[in-house]
Amino acid sequence: MNPRLQYREGLREPTSAVAPGMTQANLVAVPADWAFEMLLFAQRNPKPCPVLEVLEAGQFESRMAPGSDVRTDLPAYHLWRDGVMVEEMTDGSDLWDGLVTFLIGCSFTFENPLAAAGIPIRHQELGRNVPMYRTNRACVPAGRLHGDLVVSMRPVPADRVADAVTISGRYPAVHGAPVHVGDPSSLGVSLDVPDYGDPPVVKDGELPVFWACGVTPQAALLASKPPFAITHAPGHMFVTDVPDLEYMS
Amino acid sequence: MNPRLQYREGLREPTSAVAPGMTQANLVAVPADWAFEMLLFAQRNPKPCPVLEVLEAGQFESRMAPGSDVRTDLPAYHLWRDGVMVEEMTDGSDLWDGLVTFLIGCSFTFENPLAAAGIPIRHQELGRNVPMYRTNRACVPAGRLHGDLVVSMRPVPADRVADAVTISGRYPAVHGAPVHVGDPSSLGVSLDVPDYGDPPVVKDGELPVFWACGVTPQAALLASKPPFAITHAPGHMFVTDVPDLEYMS
Repeated sequence: MNPRLQYREGLREPTSAVAPGMTQANLVAVPADWAFEMLLFAQRNPKPCPVLEVLEAGQFESRMAPGSDVRTDLPAYHLWRDGVMVEEMTDGSDLWDGLVTFLIGCSFTFENPLAAAGIPIRHQELGRNVPMYRTNRACVPAGRLHGDLVVSMRPVPADRVADAVTISGRYPAVHGAPVHVGDPSSLGVSLDVPDYGDPPVVKDGELPVFWACGVTPQAALLASKPPFAITHAPGHMFVTDVPDLEYMS
Repeated sequence: MNPRLQYREGLREPTSAVAPGMTQANLVAVPADWAFEMLLFAQRNPKPCPVLEVLEAGQFESRMAPGSDVRTDLPAYHLWRDGVMVEEMTDGSDLWDGLVTFLIGCSFTFENPLAAAGIPIRHQELGRNVPMYRTNRACVPAGRLHGDLVVSMRPVPADRVADAVTISGRYPAVHGAPVHVGDPSSLGVSLDVPDYGDPPVVKDGELPVFWACGVTPQAALLASKPPFAITHAPGHMFVTDVPDLEYMS
C-alpha cells in the first residue's frame, strides 16, 4: 500500500527505510509574507536547504506525488507558533490556509546508494531515527530568517569515508557531499546528545560523518520566530513517487 | 582597469570576451512584491535561471564583487514598464529604490573552457554579441510570472558536439549542458533572425547548439508585465570577481 495513504489514515513512523529508491522530502510551510525570505534562505544555504518544490498558497498536491496532499500525507507534523514547537500532529488540514509549502531534499535519498556500495547505515540497522545536531555554524541569513546549520550524522568505517563522500556528492539536490568528517566538537556538537532523532552507535574504526540536514529550516524557525509555521517531524518525511536516481548528477 | 569601473564611467560594450576567467551574470531587478515570484520562477526553471545571488531591497553591492554597485557597474541596462522595454541606459542609480536584484548565471562562464578545449566560439571570433532566441517552449510559471524559454546558440563542429555537452555540463550553476542540438525549427526559431544579439555564422559541418539563456527572465517580464523592472541589456553583463572555476561541479 502507498505509504502516503497509510500516513493519511494516521500511521506514525519514521520514514528512513520506507519505499526504498523513492525520494523523500523535508517539509516547511510558512505564511505567504515569509515565503520570499524562506526561499531566499534556501537559495543562500543550498546544502542544508535544497528546494525540490514549492507549493504556492492554496496548492496541496505535490507534482512529485500525484494524488498527494501535503497537509495529511506525512506521518507526523510539528506546529510552530512564534518560534516555539507547540504541538505534534498527524493531520494539518485545518491549519494550512494561506501557507506556502517548501519541499526540501533529504539525505535519505543517498542512503540507498551508500548501502548498495556496502557502507553500513547504522540507524537503519538499529531501526532508529538518524541522529541530527544543531551546530555552531551560522547559516547565511535572509531578511528576518536566520539560524544555525543542522547536520545529520552517519558513522562510516575509515576506509569507506572517501567512498561515502564520492557517492553522496553525486546527489547535490539532496545535500550532496558531507560538510564535515570527524571531530564533533569543532561543530559544537556532542555525539551522544543529538538535538533531533536517536543517539548514535559509533563502532571502533568508524568516523562520524556529518551531512547538511533539511531540519535546518526548523532551527531557523526556532531562532527567527515567525508567528506560525508547520514542518514535518524530524525523520518523518514526505515520501514522493520520484526515483532517487532522478537526483543523481 | 577593472571593467566595472569603466562601465560605471559610461563605457558601453558587450562583455563576452571581457575579464576572461571571471564569472559574468545576468541581472533582473523587480519591485519587492514581485520578488517571491521571480525567485520561485527561477527555482522552477533552473536551467535558464540559475540564481547566483539575490540582493535584497536597499542592497547594491554584490558579494561576488566587493566595491561594486549593481546600479551603475553594467555597461547597459534596459528599463521596463508594464512589460515594455522603454529605455536603454548606462546608469540606473535614480530608479533602484525598493527593487530586489537577481544575479543569474551566464553561459559566458563556460565559453572559456570550451575555447580552451579547441571548440570555436564564433561570436567571439567575429567580435559580435552571441545570438539569442525566444523559443516555443514555455517555462514553468510562478504566480503572475510566465514566459517562454530563451536560448543562446553557438555553432559547434559535429565532431565536437559531445565535448561541448560534456564541458558545459560541468557548470550546472551557469546553464549547464545544452537544451537542444540541431534543428532550430523544432524550437520555433529561425537561425538568421535572433531575438537578441547578432545574427550567427554557421559553417559547413557545424551544428547549432542551444543553451538555456539568462535572458529568459526578460521574456517573462515581456509576457507578464510587472509595472516596473530593470535588466541588463542582453550581452552586457555584470562582470564579477569570482573565478569561473568556482562554478565547476
